[in-house]
Amino acid sequence: MSPFRASAPLTDTWDHFELTNAGGVTTVTFTRPDKINALTFDVYADLRDLLAELPHRDDTRVLVLRGQGRGFCSGGDVNEIIGETLQMDPDGLLAFTRMTGEVVKSMRECPVPVIAAVHGIAAGAGAVLALAADFRVVARSARFAFLFTKVGLSGADMGAAYLLPRVVGLGHATKLLMLGDTVGAAEADRYGLVSELVEDDDLDASVTALAERLAGGPAFGYAQTKALLSRELDMNLSGAIELEAMTQALLMKSQDYAEFHAAFTGKRDPQWKGR
Amino acid sequence: MSPFRASAPLTDTWDHFELTNAGGVTTVTFTRPDKINALTFDVYADLRDLLAELPHRDDTRVLVLRGQGRGFCSGGDVNEIIGETLQMDPDGLLAFTRMTGEVVKSMRECPVPVIAAVHGIAAGAGAVLALAADFRVVARSARFAFLFTKVGLSGADMGAAYLLPRVVGLGHATKLLMLGDTVGAAEADRYGLVSELVEDDDLDASVTALAERLAGGPAFGYAQTKALLSRELDMNLSGAIELEAMTQALLMKSQDYAEFHAAFTGKRDPQWKGR
Amino acid sequence: MSPFRASAPLTDTWDHFELTNAGGVTTVTFTRPDKINALTFDVYADLRDLLAELPHRDDTRVLVLRGQGRGFCSGGDVNEIIGETLQMDPDGLLAFTRMTGEVVKSMRECPVPVIAAVHGIAAGAGAVLALAADFRVVARSARFAFLFTKVGLSGADMGAAYLLPRVVGLGHATKLLMLGDTVGAAEADRYGLVSELVEDDDLDASVTALAERLAGGPAFGYAQTKALLSRELDMNLSGAIELEAMTQALLMKSQDYAEFHAAFTGKRDPQWKGR
Repeated sequence: MSPFRASAPLTDTWDHFELTNAGGVTTVTFTRPDKINALTFDVYADLRDLLAELPHRDDTRVLVLRGQGRGFCSGGDVNEIIGETLQMDPDGLLAFTRMTGEVVKSMRECPVPVIAAVHGIAAGAGAVLALAADFRVVARSARFAFLFTKVGLSGADMGAAYLLPRVVGLGHATKLLMLGDTVGAAEADRYGLVSELVEDDDLDASVTALAERLAGGPAFGYAQTKALLSRELDMNLSGAIELEAMTQALLMKSQDYAEFHAAFTGKRDPQWKGR
Repeated sequence: MSPFRASAPLTDTWDHFELTNAGGVTTVTFTRPDKINALTFDVYADLRDLLAELPHRDDTRVLVLRGQGRGFCSGGDVNEIIGETLQMDPDGLLAFTRMTGEVVKSMRECPVPVIAAVHGIAAGAGAVLALAADFRVVARSARFAFLFTKVGLSGADMGAAYLLPRVVGLGHATKLLMLGDTVGAAEADRYGLVSELVEDDDLDASVTALAERLAGGPAFGYAQTKALLSRELDMNLSGAIELEAMTQALLMKSQDYAEFHAAFTGKRDPQWKGR
Repeated sequence: MSPFRASAPLTDTWDHFELTNAGGVTTVTFTRPDKINALTFDVYADLRDLLAELPHRDDTRVLVLRGQGRGFCSGGDVNEIIGETLQMDPDGLLAFTRMTGEVVKSMRECPVPVIAAVHGIAAGAGAVLALAADFRVVARSARFAFLFTKVGLSGADMGAAYLLPRVVGLGHATKLLMLGDTVGAAEADRYGLVSELVEDDDLDASVTALAERLAGGPAFGYAQTKALLSRELDMNLSGAIELEAMTQALLMKSQDYAEFHAAFTGKRDPQWKGR
């Protein structure tokens, strides 16, 4: 999307998850099904780098995160992360926790809509990755578990204590993060954590439909909607309204806005350019 | 309400909506029923000026917004606004988007409670006007559509990306603003967007009852409740608690607080003065 | 919890509520059942001082607030507070409203989880005390009434206009604080105000179970979850993510984190130290 690309090459091969791309939809599939896609240092590092490259990839209009096998993602691997961190020095620990936080920050700040396709369990960091997405399409049998306190850590991890109260309210967020219990999809839906609750067999089709819709739509409008939703959480009313006025005035000079009007008056569907 | 009125006269006649006033209730009725009350530059400008005058009008204890005909308001007129803006220069566009934002800002900051009486469709800017009200009394058959991305613009318009996550949470707000789809009253109610869901035939009576209750109540207390709800969205806990301490101490010197105690001990209903 | 205790002694006797302590659970019981536990200046002052001492008491892992008799707390006493304040000077009024705000601020900022056990009515300041708790365990027949405007004051009292929109959203909060009407437990639950809705006969057992769970759990993790949930309401995304990275890196050096791993690999339950 960004025309400002300098000397650094884009990455061709991602070793720690499967990446596919078609029709503007980039899909990251976690591929450790035997561990319910438990995250390793390497998966985090690849996610961090992919998200940093995403605004520079012309092929990506929407990002989908999904898991292979029985679940979405069971969070940090007990041996490969928890066990390892027990041996690490403070500076190494901070480098690790900053990396995981950077993944969430990039998900919230990248101009590309992100869909989490959640089936089975989304636990620990897996639950936070789903939380940081713009859309959570959730199978009816799926479960969420922000289980950090159960491993002796803070329930505030990777931005969860910032994001969750803003998604489900402070009361539900306190319960989820403090206790770390597992909640089913229906309960999560009641809290406001679910964007689209679907039957298990419909998950793939629903995610594909939403991804294709977003990929084929007015990408500039979507990007500026996401950007302002994110940034205005941290702004006051007056500044937010001024930002929206500036943004909308800019978009009124975009091709897509003119295209809408031409299509409407011509009684045809608009052909979105994304600029 | 404000005793500080200088030389500028109040406006006698509003050309671009119908304005009635009785018993402290000022009602703005959008009067372009053939266009489902699509907004024009003129309607916005009148709304902006009315809201600026409102704190100076002694006759207004509550403001009601409603639409004539089949719906509340279908948003910016396709020809009279979208068509026109396609011809405008950047400074003109910004003057327009700032004006629409100023309407929302005034609705949130004016000391008068605002009720949106929503039937039929509240679309685009019409949905944001309803969102910016303090109370949304909504007929069961009504629908909301924050359809900005569908015309190629940002879903963040007139403060919607600031207000909507604070009303319905970030998850629902993302879905509503990014996709721009129409949601029915029951779904909107589930999200927290509806203050009072009523049968279609009961809408007028319910709005009147709420308006009369607010108009006859302790106006100073209402005003300071609204003001702090608005301002404290942008404050931290410590500042908010200090503001509430200051506010409440001030109101403990008001006539209405003494009146409550006199009425309570005298076993009669309080006669609110609003000061 | 804090090892930094200087010369000031802890208070042995609290005259204005009943305080019990067992197994890390400190319980405050309001003991004016004939007035549905209406608050007096003295109760507030004792609450303020207890909350200031709480981080220094080694015996407290969780605080429970409950009411004796027919209800949780009916708010400020009509005669002993409202009547008295009518005679007070501005500086005295501000000293009072600051004291009540300080109670809420301490509840939100103390490192100990707070449970409100709500039965019967939680009205006025009683509703705000419940709101400021981390968990609201609520009997099905309980009711909430943020009734401040009904006594001629602002609905924004003791931080309610800050906290309530962050718990239930701005729409519901406006309705509750502006109108001051009584809402039942089911309605409050729908808004997100209830952490756990229980049958009336199960209230004590549910509160005890939750309190014992929190008292026996990883206290440092809980404390840092609560602290960040509170503080990050007032922070931006970038700062929040950095704070969480720092926090989690620190907790990865705690005994409880190592204990989790030892217990997990040893296939036994962890023995939490809270440090």
